[in-house]
Amino acid sequence: MKYAPREEIETRISKVKKLMEKASLDGAFFHYKIDYYYLAGTMQDSLLFIPLDEEPILFVKREITRARRESPIGKIVPFRSVKDIFAHIKPMKRIGLQLDVIPYNDVVKFKAHLGNAELVDVSPLTKEVRKVKSPFEIGIIEKAAEIAKKVYAKVPESLKEGMTEIELGGIMEAYAKTLGHEGLLRVRSLNYEAYTWHILSGRTGSIVSQSDSPMGGLGLSPAFPVGASMKKIKRNEPILVDFGISYHGYHMDLTRMYAIGSMPDIFVGAYEACREIHYRVLDKALEGAISKELFEYSRQLADKMGYGDYYLGYGHHKVRFLAHGIGVELAEFPYIAATHEYPIEDGSVFAIEPKMVFPKKGACGIENTVIIEKGKYRILSDSDERIIIV
Amino acid sequence: MKYAPREEIETRISKVKKLMEKASLDGAFFHYKIDYYYLAGTMQDSLLFIPLDEEPILFVKREITRARRESPIGKIVPFRSVKDIFAHIKPMKRIGLQLDVIPYNDVVKFKAHLGNAELVDVSPLTKEVRKVKSPFEIGIIEKAAEIAKKVYAKVPESLKEGMTEIELGGIMEAYAKTLGHEGLLRVRSLNYEAYTWHILSGRTGSIVSQSDSPMGGLGLSPAFPVGASMKKIKRNEPILVDFGISYHGYHMDLTRMYAIGSMPDIFVGAYEACREIHYRVLDKALEGAISKELFEYSRQLADKMGYGDYYLGYGHHKVRFLAHGIGVELAEFPYIAATHEYPIEDGSVFAIEPKMVFPKKGACGIENTVIIEKGKYRILSDSDERIIIV
Repeated sequence: MKYAPREEIETRISKVKKLMEKASLDGAFFHYKIDYYYLAGTMQDSLLFIPLDEEPILFVKREITRARRESPIGKIVPFRSVKDIFAHIKPMKRIGLQLDVIPYNDVVKFKAHLGNAELVDVSPLTKEVRKVKSPFEIGIIEKAAEIAKKVYAKVPESLKEGMTEIELGGIMEAYAKTLGHEGLLRVRSLNYEAYTWHILSGRTGSIVSQSDSPMGGLGLSPAFPVGASMKKIKRNEPILVDFGISYHGYHMDLTRMYAIGSMPDIFVGAYEACREIHYRVLDKALEGAISKELFEYSRQLADKMGYGDYYLGYGHHKVRFLAHGIGVELAEFPYIAATHEYPIEDGSVFAIEPKMVFPKKGACGIENTVIIEKGKYRILSDSDERIIIV
Repeated sequence: MKYAPREEIETRISKVKKLMEKASLDGAFFHYKIDYYYLAGTMQDSLLFIPLDEEPILFVKREITRARRESPIGKIVPFRSVKDIFAHIKPMKRIGLQLDVIPYNDVVKFKAHLGNAELVDVSPLTKEVRKVKSPFEIGIIEKAAEIAKKVYAKVPESLKEGMTEIELGGIMEAYAKTLGHEGLLRVRSLNYEAYTWHILSGRTGSIVSQSDSPMGGLGLSPAFPVGASMKKIKRNEPILVDFGISYHGYHMDLTRMYAIGSMPDIFVGAYEACREIHYRVLDKALEGAISKELFEYSRQLADKMGYGDYYLGYGHHKVRFLAHGIGVELAEFPYIAATHEYPIEDGSVFAIEPKMVFPKKGACGIENTVIIEKGKYRILSDSDERIIIV
């Protein structure tokens, strides 16, 4: 197991403190484990407090021995109730809380201890800091990429006519786990869950669902309406494999196309168009274009190539993003999206996924996890990009 | 795919309405998909509104065609923003919202449309209704039990000396998926995640983690500190397999013990004690004992048999529940727990799990998903209960 080194955690906290100062916060609480993992290195049942002018305190409910081993935070203390926490904390005027994720009831309980302090949503600050990855993080993401590469290399030998989509998903999942894949993908949402087993074949690729994706898939039941289904995989239909990996909490996202027998021409052409959009957008990102310009540019490219109707979804089901940042959450900053107004900075890691949906026929597309570094891009998910025919 | 029949949904809604009336609510909103799945039959991206005196309205963002197919709710309308919703709704005085799960920011946005209405947490109402299962639900849970039984029957042939815990987890998961298992287990919590692959061998059975469980396991990294690990499974050590199943959103939970070669005597004895506690508590539940009495009774039994120190965890890591209700969430009412004051009603389905932890040695225990019906109990997870030696 890799633990985050002290300097890594100190750098992250000092970046957050700078933003806290700018936002005139006296201190901030981090309740959500994704963020306190990023800032403290542990996901034990905890609560991280960062005062502006003093050392952070990690309050741990369970299990403190492991939290002490995993986290380089100097002050780690046990707690049982919110009251225990406030015994350690001076009164403050403006306090950060993760108001975008903490349930309402929990904020109300917390408020009872905060007097007249003003509450500010502190999540935008960690989201901003997490936008750019450190060499330590990139090392972990590279390890996730290695796992993904091995898992995708196994698809051709696993893929058989007549197997169900979910069966292929299970085989990939089982193999990935032996390599260190952690199984769950994390998204910052009350209702949206990401499944690793996003395998869509033929017509299921054109089925839309609850998720904000050009294609949702049929899923397994009304309670799991996204991703792989019990549909049998047939010859001569497009098989889209979008299988996420997590390693030490960091995600990797990639999509490749497969077919048994042959790939119908319509998907061969559309796939090549997706690849062209993918690389031309990356080139333009290096020129410093801002997010929404990149998104619009990709739409114009799709239009020019005659794929405007199918690009990023069909009809009113089109999505308004082409890429999502990726790290301790499957989707984080930066995005390449219709309304985002920032350039893609050096150190950004994101998954870019031009995809096309043909009603009742299926879907195709490519997805790579990419890093921008020293003014260049590097494909982290560098598996074979050709359509694989088995 | 099974869809909830109209009468089923109507019955559930009328039960909630009765409780709403008692709580003097004019209407209630259900944002959380677990509950609107229960009350409307779909998990498409939606929001369910139940007015006390009129028909419910299901507002659907994505994907309305599927929501209409899945849900028997009569009035299903599209929406894009909160504003769209309030165009359909009369002013109210006392309104239910799921304040235990909805993020603070979202409640604030919603409040802006509610005038001076009083907000009440409506989640206790659905939790109460969900406590007793209908024949339709029991049918689904029985199907989940069938899947679990087949998956557990495969363990002996899959279990090999030297394989990692997570490898066994992956094999079970892959096979379960071919049978319709949906892969994710759902819990009502911001930070707690349940993994299906809870496989602990030897010493990892005595490792505690973030989760409220007698044994957490080592897990795979500081970001996934619960469940199966990369530890290799050895001969002559206890192997605890606690592998959850979900089917159409309903959960099944069971634990069985395995060993390669032989099971050390200490675990053979402790396992038999767990089984005795399991069945004696069930007998007492039928007599109408209340939850906390049942919990205390189980502790006394463990004490008498000389296992007091190890029962439900060691030292300050002991947990204060023996059983959790199970349904569309992995843990719901009723519980058999130290502070719960109700009897176990007819129609309850719960997972009862007496377990023992021996420091640095490992853990053992049994878990069954059980229904109480017509004054009797029935083990739904009726796999072989003997310790399996391979």
